[in-house]
Amino acid sequence: MKELRAGVSAAGDIAIEGEHLLAEAAESGLNFAAIFVEQGQEHRLERLTLPADAEVLVVARDVFSSAVHTESPQGVAALVRMPEWTLDEILDREEPALLVVSGGLQDPGNLGTLIRSAEAFGATGFIMLPGTVSLANQKVLRASAGSAFRLPCVAVKEDDLFEALDERGIRIAAAVAAEGESASEWDFTKPAALLLGNEGAGLSPSLLAEAEVRLTIPMPGPVESLNAAVAGSVLLYEAARQRGGKR
Amino acid sequence: MKELRAGVSAAGDIAIEGEHLLAEAAESGLNFAAIFVEQGQEHRLERLTLPADAEVLVVARDVFSSAVHTESPQGVAALVRMPEWTLDEILDREEPALLVVSGGLQDPGNLGTLIRSAEAFGATGFIMLPGTVSLANQKVLRASAGSAFRLPCVAVKEDDLFEALDERGIRIAAAVAAEGESASEWDFTKPAALLLGNEGAGLSPSLLAEAEVRLTIPMPGPVESLNAAVAGSVLLYEAARQRGGKR
Repeated sequence: MKELRAGVSAAGDIAIEGEHLLAEAAESGLNFAAIFVEQGQEHRLERLTLPADAEVLVVARDVFSSAVHTESPQGVAALVRMPEWTLDEILDREEPALLVVSGGLQDPGNLGTLIRSAEAFGATGFIMLPGTVSLANQKVLRASAGSAFRLPCVAVKEDDLFEALDERGIRIAAAVAAEGESASEWDFTKPAALLLGNEGAGLSPSLLAEAEVRLTIPMPGPVESLNAAVAGSVLLYEAARQRGGKR
Repeated sequence: MKELRAGVSAAGDIAIEGEHLLAEAAESGLNFAAIFVEQGQEHRLERLTLPADAEVLVVARDVFSSAVHTESPQGVAALVRMPEWTLDEILDREEPALLVVSGGLQDPGNLGTLIRSAEAFGATGFIMLPGTVSLANQKVLRASAGSAFRLPCVAVKEDDLFEALDERGIRIAAAVAAEGESASEWDFTKPAALLLGNEGAGLSPSLLAEAEVRLTIPMPGPVESLNAAVAGSVLLYEAARQRGGKR
């Protein structure tokens, strides 16, 4: 069960823990490489609709506990294969592109929440630059409420991303807490990539330099900034609103 | 130091822990009833601009550790007096009212994040119905980034709230995940109270029955719902957008 500890196995599978995540992975149509259940907890699997062909391994309690990350393991875990997307596939997927680019979000709850909002508001892909918390983090997966299993996500280096966006004429809009253009007035109907910074430090100068425009969410109140996941979600809502709401 | 453990002291003071919260409380102009510092950590106070008249108590390390809530106490704590608001004061504070009503938010990170967004988007008050996590929770205070020290907040019972809103003609809009009126098209410029439900169960039938309208955030993607703090923040953004952005 070494793979369970590592988060991502050599084969590209990721470990997920608990009934809720297993159910979401199954509903999202993911392939299960293996399912692990703690001895005496087999009944938990009966409540779940899991792929019939997945190998089920029953393991002793102490082995199970030492193999999973969570403090209170729920008796079931699995290795699942995440959908694999290349940057090109994501960028050429749909028009007009609405991409979210994480420039180093480190709080797993924030990243997962933002992926959930991205899927909700019709983003066409989610791009993670170096410094971003791993998608295989259990808290990211839980906060995403299944969206991380479905929304096309990819981790790439800065140069590869900016070159690919430039080739396609996709505009980069950087979210900044103050002194940017009003996000309510910017035209989100054209292909765009929303660049979001780290919770504490914001966007680095080198990332900011890549942006065609800096956007600030108008805030009448005396608050310096919003929570990072909230700021990204509000920008995505504004984009969806301008693009016409429900498809 | 019994008061530190209790969250809220008999005198109505609340305990806060760590340099960051102490600094935010001081910047927000709160009264400090007492400041506690762990022996050997006195230098931490020098970095902070705290009220000069507050009593400072230096306590032994084991006493300090046993008295604070956090797993890794940062050597400083304080008892502060939160601004006290009555429901009437909040409802008559400003026109047009934009109130956030928590109908049982239980995740401290969500509640704090929402209070931060509420202040940012110009909400005139924050109302906590029974079942909502306590404002004195350290995670609530931290996630609010100081907004819980400044935005008028009050905990009241359902009947008192609904009677007071009715008397003033303040409309109640309940946020629901599906099948409500489009939140992008509802008129937020008139006095309104946004009713937000619990993370898991949503709003109870009895709370829903009090609402004049049910609002749903239009979501083009295949997602059942948004994170509770995100949903509330998006509605507040929409309200601020309609009301004209920056004051």
